[in-house]
Amino acid sequence: MTALRRLMQARSVAVVGASERPDAPSGFVIRNLLGGGFTGRLLPINPTATTIYGHPAVPKLADLTATPDVVVIAIPAAPAVGVVADAAALGIKAAVVLGSGFAETDAAGAARQHALAGHARAAGMALCGPNCLGLYNLRDNLALFSSRLAPDMPRGDVAIVSHSGAGAITLANTGRFGLSAIISAGNAVVTDVADYLGYFAATGSARVVALMLEQIGDPDAFARAMHAAHAVGLVVVALRSGRSARGAAATAAHTGALAGSNDAFAAFFRRHGVLEAADMDGVIETCVLASSRQSPPRRPGLAALGVSGGGLAHAADLADAAGVTWATLADATTTGLAALLPSYVRPTMPLDMTGIVFGEPKRYRAALDLLAADPGIGQIVAVQDAPVGLDADGAAEYAGIADAIAAYATTAPTPIALLSLLSSGPHPQVRAPLAAAGVPILQGGTPGMAALANALNPPTPAPIVAIPALASQPDWVRRLSGGPKLTEREAKAFLAAHGIRITREALATTADGAARLADTIGYPVVMKIESADIPHKTEIGGVHLGIATAAAARAAHTAILAAARHHAPNARVGGVVVQEMVSRGTEALVGLSRHAPFGLALTVGPGGVLVEWFGGHALDLLPLDAPAADRLIGASKLGNLLSGLRGQPAGDRPALAALLVRLARIAHTYADQIAALDLNPVAVLPHAQGVCVLDALLIRTCDTEPHS
Amino acid sequence: MTALRRLMQARSVAVVGASERPDAPSGFVIRNLLGGGFTGRLLPINPTATTIYGHPAVPKLADLTATPDVVVIAIPAAPAVGVVADAAALGIKAAVVLGSGFAETDAAGAARQHALAGHARAAGMALCGPNCLGLYNLRDNLALFSSRLAPDMPRGDVAIVSHSGAGAITLANTGRFGLSAIISAGNAVVTDVADYLGYFAATGSARVVALMLEQIGDPDAFARAMHAAHAVGLVVVALRSGRSARGAAATAAHTGALAGSNDAFAAFFRRHGVLEAADMDGVIETCVLASSRQSPPRRPGLAALGVSGGGLAHAADLADAAGVTWATLADATTTGLAALLPSYVRPTMPLDMTGIVFGEPKRYRAALDLLAADPGIGQIVAVQDAPVGLDADGAAEYAGIADAIAAYATTAPTPIALLSLLSSGPHPQVRAPLAAAGVPILQGGTPGMAALANALNPPTPAPIVAIPALASQPDWVRRLSGGPKLTEREAKAFLAAHGIRITREALATTADGAARLADTIGYPVVMKIESADIPHKTEIGGVHLGIATAAAARAAHTAILAAARHHAPNARVGGVVVQEMVSRGTEALVGLSRHAPFGLALTVGPGGVLVEWFGGHALDLLPLDAPAADRLIGASKLGNLLSGLRGQPAGDRPALAALLVRLARIAHTYADQIAALDLNPVAVLPHAQGVCVLDALLIRTCDTEPHS
Repeated sequence: MTALRRLMQARSVAVVGASERPDAPSGFVIRNLLGGGFTGRLLPINPTATTIYGHPAVPKLADLTATPDVVVIAIPAAPAVGVVADAAALGIKAAVVLGSGFAETDAAGAARQHALAGHARAAGMALCGPNCLGLYNLRDNLALFSSRLAPDMPRGDVAIVSHSGAGAITLANTGRFGLSAIISAGNAVVTDVADYLGYFAATGSARVVALMLEQIGDPDAFARAMHAAHAVGLVVVALRSGRSARGAAATAAHTGALAGSNDAFAAFFRRHGVLEAADMDGVIETCVLASSRQSPPRRPGLAALGVSGGGLAHAADLADAAGVTWATLADATTTGLAALLPSYVRPTMPLDMTGIVFGEPKRYRAALDLLAADPGIGQIVAVQDAPVGLDADGAAEYAGIADAIAAYATTAPTPIALLSLLSSGPHPQVRAPLAAAGVPILQGGTPGMAALANALNPPTPAPIVAIPALASQPDWVRRLSGGPKLTEREAKAFLAAHGIRITREALATTADGAARLADTIGYPVVMKIESADIPHKTEIGGVHLGIATAAAARAAHTAILAAARHHAPNARVGGVVVQEMVSRGTEALVGLSRHAPFGLALTVGPGGVLVEWFGGHALDLLPLDAPAADRLIGASKLGNLLSGLRGQPAGDRPALAALLVRLARIAHTYADQIAALDLNPVAVLPHAQGVCVLDALLIRTCDTEPHS
Repeated sequence: MTALRRLMQARSVAVVGASERPDAPSGFVIRNLLGGGFTGRLLPINPTATTIYGHPAVPKLADLTATPDVVVIAIPAAPAVGVVADAAALGIKAAVVLGSGFAETDAAGAARQHALAGHARAAGMALCGPNCLGLYNLRDNLALFSSRLAPDMPRGDVAIVSHSGAGAITLANTGRFGLSAIISAGNAVVTDVADYLGYFAATGSARVVALMLEQIGDPDAFARAMHAAHAVGLVVVALRSGRSARGAAATAAHTGALAGSNDAFAAFFRRHGVLEAADMDGVIETCVLASSRQSPPRRPGLAALGVSGGGLAHAADLADAAGVTWATLADATTTGLAALLPSYVRPTMPLDMTGIVFGEPKRYRAALDLLAADPGIGQIVAVQDAPVGLDADGAAEYAGIADAIAAYATTAPTPIALLSLLSSGPHPQVRAPLAAAGVPILQGGTPGMAALANALNPPTPAPIVAIPALASQPDWVRRLSGGPKLTEREAKAFLAAHGIRITREALATTADGAARLADTIGYPVVMKIESADIPHKTEIGGVHLGIATAAAARAAHTAILAAARHHAPNARVGGVVVQEMVSRGTEALVGLSRHAPFGLALTVGPGGVLVEWFGGHALDLLPLDAPAADRLIGASKLGNLLSGLRGQPAGDRPALAALLVRLARIAHTYADQIAALDLNPVAVLPHAQGVCVLDALLIRTCDTEPHS
C-alpha cells in the first residue's frame, strides 16, 4: 500500500497527544474516529495515562508493538517536528499534523515547517497538514478530524480538499450534496492537492472534487493529477482565494504562500480542465449538478422552460453571461410545441409555457417529452421558483408542475435540473418530490447557470506537449547571468542568435559612422540611443524615425547624443544604433514574464507604444506548441487585426505563431536567466512575408535580485 | 386624493366579474381583501348574483349608488376595455385590470391595450395592469391581488414593483425582509414604475423599493421619480431582464416591449441613482441591508473580520470585484488590535482573528469596539459561516461569536452586518440571536458584497440639467428631412454651420481645380472621393494622404476617380474633396446614436480606423453639461490618452468636452432628424489648441426608414 493510501485508508491509527480533555484536538479525533464506524486499531500515545477512552495507551511511538498505518500528531508545533522524525525512523508512512505554529506564523514557524517536511519527504511519508483539521474519508469510515463532525453527514460522491480548515467545514455542511471525503490540507507542505486528486482518480472513490485553493505548490504534479482525473471522468471544481491584491495579502498572511496572477491561474485551469468557480455558491451548485445520479449531457445545447416570462428572460440573461450554448430546436419539436400551447406562445428557447400549465400540468409533461426527443438538446432546465416563504396552500399550487418534472425524471432520456432563481431554493413541498426523483435542484441564478455551463461544455484538457528546448549557447548563458545590463541592440542580438528575425542594425559611435551605416542598411532608417540605463528612449528624444539621407543621419547622431546628455547625464551611452525602418505590417507585442508558481508565461497582443495600453492581450503558460500558439493569437485582439480588419492587409499569422513557439523554447533553455522579455513592436508582415522584431527589452533574473 | 392614492389606498372597491368560483381571479381578490384586514366597502358586480361572499352585488358599475375609489376588473380582455370606458364615464379614478389578452399576445391584443389606455388616460385614471396580478398595500391592508397571499407575510419597509407577476410573487415570499407593498404592474400601460416610485417617495410608506423591470416606458418620468426618491432617502434597487439578445427577445415576447442597450440603461441608472442588481439574489441582499433598522454607513470604508483566513481572503476577492472601498485603519485601532491579538496576527483589513476567539469571544467583542471607534470605518462586516448542515452541538460552537456580535449590535455606533459566504446563510441557532439583535444577515458572497458596496457608496444622482437647444436652421432641417444622403463633406458642413471646427476643405471637380485648392489650403493635403454611396472610402483607394505638391494633387484626382469608377461603378460621385491634413493631436471618436427608450446618446473614446475597434469607449445619455462631458471623457480610455501617456503631448480636454456639449445641443435641436452621427477621427490638439473634426458620417432618420 502506498503512503497516501495508508493516510486515506488507515486500519491502525496512533494518536500522539491523546487526551480525554473535552476540548483537546486529539479528543475530537478519537471521538470522531470511534463514532464514525472505524473498525481498525486505535493506539493512543500519552506520556502518563494507561488508557484513553478505554484504549490502552503507551508513552511514546517507539513503545508500540506494531507499526501503525498512520500517526495523528496533536501536540504543539515544536515537539511535533521531533515526533515526525521519530515516526519516520520507525517506518510509519503517514501522518496528520494538526497544530498551528508553522509557516503561517513567523520565521521560526517557517523553519519548523521546513524541518518537518524534510523528515517526512526523506522517509517517503504522506503527511496531511500541518496547521489543519485532518481528514475524514467517509468511504472507509476513517475520521482523523479534529473538529466536530455531524453524526449524520450525507454520504455521496463529492470529495472536498481545502487549504482552509474553515472552508472545509463550511463546504462539508451545506447539506446540498453527499460526501465521499473531507480533507483539510492545511499548509500542505508534503502532501498537497495534487496528491489527493491523484488518490481520488486512482481509487474511483469520488465523482466530483471541490477544491478550496490558496496556492498551487507543484504545477506539474497538479497537471498530471488533472489528466488522471479526466481519464476517469472525475469533475474538479476550484475556488481560489487571493485573486485580488488584498485577498492575496490575506492568503499570504494566512498560509505563508504567495499567489500568482489571475491570468496565469486562469490559463493553468483552462489548460488542465479545472472548473473555476466565482464564489462558494458556484462551487456548491457545480457539485450538486455534477454529482447528480442522472447521466451528464451528451451534447452542449440547453433547453429551458418555465411558467414565468419574466423569470425566463432573466434566466436567459444569466445564461448568456455564463456562456451557455442554447439548443436550436428541431422542426418536429417546434411543431409539437406549437400544437401543444396557445397560439400566442412562441415555441422558442427559453420556452414560456405561461400560467396555463398550473391548471393543466399534463402539458408541462408533454413539453418535456417533446424536448427530450430533440436530438439537439443536451440538458433541460426547468426555471421555477416556489419561494420558501409561501404557506402550505401557496406551495401546493406548484405541485402539478413538480410532479410533472419528477415523473419525467424517473426515465429522463435527457437530463433535467430545476433552477431556482432564488438561492434559498424551492419550498420544501416542491423540493421533496423532485429530490425523491433525483432531480438536481440548482439554487441561485448566477451559480446555477454557471453549473449548467460547466456541465454543457465540460473542459477538455490540452495534451501535455513536450517542446524541445533550444541548445543553450555558453556565451549567452554567461551574458545572461551577470555583467552589464543588456541594451535593446544586445537583446535583439540574443534573439537573432536563436533564430529570430530582427531589424538590420548596427552601432555607430561617430556621426560619419552613422551615415555610412545608413547608406549600407538603406533609407529610411531609424536611429536610437544605445544605453541600458535609458528604458524609455522616445520620451527623452532618443529616437529619430524616417531618416532619409546621410546628412540627416549625421545630424541625428549629434542630436540624439546631446538629448541623452541633457536628460540622462549619468546614463552610460554606447553610441547610436542605426536601424532598418520597417513601417509595413501590423504591430504586435510578444512577451515573456514570470508568473509564480508557473514560471515564464507568454503574452501576445496588439503592440506599439500606445496600443499596448489598450489591452486585448492573451496569456498562456509553457510549454506551447504551434496549435496552442495559434489559439493564443486568436484569443487576443491581434487575431482579428491579422485577419485584415477594415481594409488592412492580412498578417502572417503562422509566422507569428512560429515566433511564439521559438520564444517558448528560448524560455525553456534560459528559464533561470530570463526574468522578462518584451518584444514590442513586432512587425507582422503581410501573408507569407514573416515577422520582424523592431524593439526588445530583456530583463535578466540577476537584474531583479537585490545586490548582496 | 389623487387617482394614484385612490388606487393604493382605496376605501371602497368594486369588483367586476365578482364570483364565488374557487379558482376565479376575482375570488382570490375578494378573499385576500377580506382576509387582509380591509375595513372599507366591498362592492361586487355580477350580472346575476345578488350576493358574493355575503356582500350585496349589483349587475353593473352604473348600478352602484356611490362612486368607488377603485374598480377591479376580473373579466376577459375584450369586455374589460368597455368596463374601463364605463368606469371613466362614471368618474371612477382608479382601476386594476387583471386579465391577459393585451399587447403580450397579438396585434388584436395590442389594439385592445391601446383602446384601454386611451379611455383611462382621457379620464385621468390610475390603472394597474393589464395582464397583472394586482397590488397588495400592506400598510393600508388593501389586497387587490389575484394570487394566493400567505396569511402571515412579514410587514416592513420594502416595496416590490414588478412587471412580471411571477417575479412579484417570488420576491415577496423570500421571507428575508418585511414588506410594505407588492405591486404586479403587468403591461403598465397607464400607471408605470415611475408612478409607483413617486407614490412611495411622497407617502414615505417604504424605505426600499425593489424593481423587477422589463422596460422603462417614460424615462423622464422615471428620472423625476428617482430624484423625488433620493430627496427622501428612498433606496431603489432594480433587476432588469432583457440584458442579453435572447433575454430581450423573451421579454418582448412576454410584454410586447422593446429593450434598449445595456450601456444606455447602465448610464440611465447611474445618472438617476438606481442600484442595478446582477440577479435576484443581488436584489434580495440589497433589500435586506437597506431595510435594516441600523443607521446606514456614514462614510465609505469597510472593515471585515472573521475567524477564517481562507474565508476572509475569499471575501476580500469578492469585495474587490464589487468595488468596495476598504477602511484604512487609524493608528489607535492598529495598536489596540495588536495588543488584543496574538503576535502572529496582522492587524490589517480583513482582520483574521483566528480560531482563538472560539474559546475567548470577549476578544471578538473587544475588536468590534475598537473598529467602532475608528473614524475611517463606515460599515463593519463579520464574515462568518455556520452552515445549516451542522448538528446542534456543532452550531453551538459559534454561539460565543454570535453573542458577541449581537451584544455589540444593541448599540452599534457603526453599523454591522453578518456575511455568510454561503447563500443558504447561517445555521438557525446562529441566525436567531443575530436576528433578534437586528443584525442584517447577508447570504452569499457575491450578492452580499454587492449589497455592502451599494450601502457604502450610495448613488448620487446627477442634477437634471437643462441644456439649451441650438437655434434650428431651416435649410438644415430641410436637408436632414429628405433628399439625397449627405456626403462626408456635407455632414461636416452641417457641423461647421453649428459652430464646430472642421478641416479646411472644398470640392474639386477637375484635376487642375484640385491643384489650385491644394495651393490655397496649404500642403500637405488629404484628398478623398466625394460620394454618399461609398461609406468605406479607404478600402476602395478613395483616400490619398500626405499630398505634398500641386502635381501630386492633379495625379491623385485622376487616380481617385479611376478607383471609384472601378470599385463602385454605380456610385454617384460629386468629385474629390481636397482637405487640410491634420496629423497632430490624439485621435478621438465622438458619436451620437439612438438608444430606445432614451433617444440619442453620446459616445466618446479613442478614434481612428483601427483603434476604434479596441473599445474603451464610454456612453452617456442627454442632456449633458460640461462637467458631465468631462466625466464621460474620463470614463473612457481617452481620459488617460489625453493626459500625456508615454510621452505623447497632453490633449485639449476642455475643448473636447465643449465639443460633446455642442453635439448634445445639436442632438436636442435635430432630435427627430438625426439617427446617428459619427465623428471619427476628431483630432484633439495639444493644450489650448482645440479640436478639429477630420471625418464625419451623418445618418438621417429618413435614411433608416423603409420607403413607402
